Amino acid sequence: MTGTLYGVGVGPGDPDLITLKALKILRTTPVVAYLAADAAESLARAIAAPHLPGGQAEVVIRVPMRTDPTPGQAVYDRAAEELAAHLEAGRDVAVLCEGDPLLYGSFQYLLNRLAGRAEVRVVPGVTSLTAASAAALAPLASRNDALAVLPAPLDAGVLRDRLRAADAAVIVKLGRHLPKVRAVLDELGLLHRAVYVERVSMDGQRILPLAQVDGPAPYFSMILVPR
Amino acid sequence: MTGTLYGVGVGPGDPDLITLKALKILRTTPVVAYLAADAAESLARAIAAPHLPGGQAEVVIRVPMRTDPTPGQAVYDRAAEELAAHLEAGRDVAVLCEGDPLLYGSFQYLLNRLAGRAEVRVVPGVTSLTAASAAALAPLASRNDALAVLPAPLDAGVLRDRLRAADAAVIVKLGRHLPKVRAVLDELGLLHRAVYVERVSMDGQRILPLAQVDGPAPYFSMILVPR
Repeated sequence: MTGTLYGVGVGPGDPDLITLKALKILRTTPVVAYLAADAAESLARAIAAPHLPGGQAEVVIRVPMRTDPTPGQAVYDRAAEELAAHLEAGRDVAVLCEGDPLLYGSFQYLLNRLAGRAEVRVVPGVTSLTAASAAALAPLASRNDALAVLPAPLDAGVLRDRLRAADAAVIVKLGRHLPKVRAVLDELGLLHRAVYVERVSMDGQRILPLAQVDGPAPYFSMILVPR
Repeated sequence: MTGTLYGVGVGPGDPDLITLKALKILRTTPVVAYLAADAAESLARAIAAPHLPGGQAEVVIRVPMRTDPTPGQAVYDRAAEELAAHLEAGRDVAVLCEGDPLLYGSFQYLLNRLAGRAEVRVVPGVTSLTAASAAALAPLASRNDALAVLPAPLDAGVLRDRLRAADAAVIVKLGRHLPKVRAVLDELGLLHRAVYVERVSMDGQRILPLAQVDGPAPYFSMILVPR
């Protein structure tokens, strides 16, 4: 009898944006795991904190963060082995994931490694995309709009082409790429429509026209380009 | 003192995929409103049903459905006036929205009409996109993937161009457009990657390779094209 591996979306930041389904798993699972950058606190752990009953074992997966996080696969190899030991001992494991586990989430690297060794279930979560749209009261797409979700690290030329092939867009993973993205949007005549959203649903949330934003942005920020 | 208008995402179908934030609003708001097609039951109302305390006033917004629903704006004009009467009497109103209120949702038509007359707040919900990805254990996007969300009613040529400009895609609003979409994916060499998901998180959920699906699909179905 092996345990079940759960990928649990805990939402974009506000602990009240967790689902009942995620909550039930957090309250009953004996092992929780989560990623944390170097010595930093884990955002997923912080979001889940008010909901954890206490007494569960915790596995911290330390990921070396660079400006664009592309940690070596060895981190996930080791983490998968640590989780496998719990699963093979019959203990369910919940991996806490900010936003949704499978939309730009690292859970997929654990899923790839453990899918053949234990039952895996994924609980979808509210993404920062829809949370930003809600906070800004800016509809993302309607009717037959094509919506593009684009990571800011893409080359300016690629971003330009992808934006031209969409009616509306969300640009994620901003960080130091904000000036480049802003220039591309300006060139395409889209700057006046673009909304900058930082730390959505968390303390310090900021929403303002992109035209008023200069310089680099924190990692937890994005740009909405509604139709 | 006018009331507050809430657009409340109730998630893709499973009542446990509602957020705590939505739940708190449903339990305390004196008026709930929802769309329903002609004489049919409202899906959003059905999802919220286990969570409603009873005793609230209900406003049914009857929308004439065609294969591609593009109801006349008069429906929303009338609904906005009915909700405005509650708001102006000081009563909060929660509009129940399947999935997320602002991602292909009709709530934006009420938001447009009422934003100047009452405070409006939107509670984001789990979308059917991430729910389908979770159910199929199919990651939607990772690293710097460009993700396209495309409505199936788009012309075949437009779909082809948009799919060429993306690393991964979700095709929504399938219905009678499934054979056209399937043909486009086949032409682009993407059919083997495409996953068909019907009634995600609800009774009768079906997940299978698109290559095994023929003919038209129900409205609540989509195609995932993971990278």
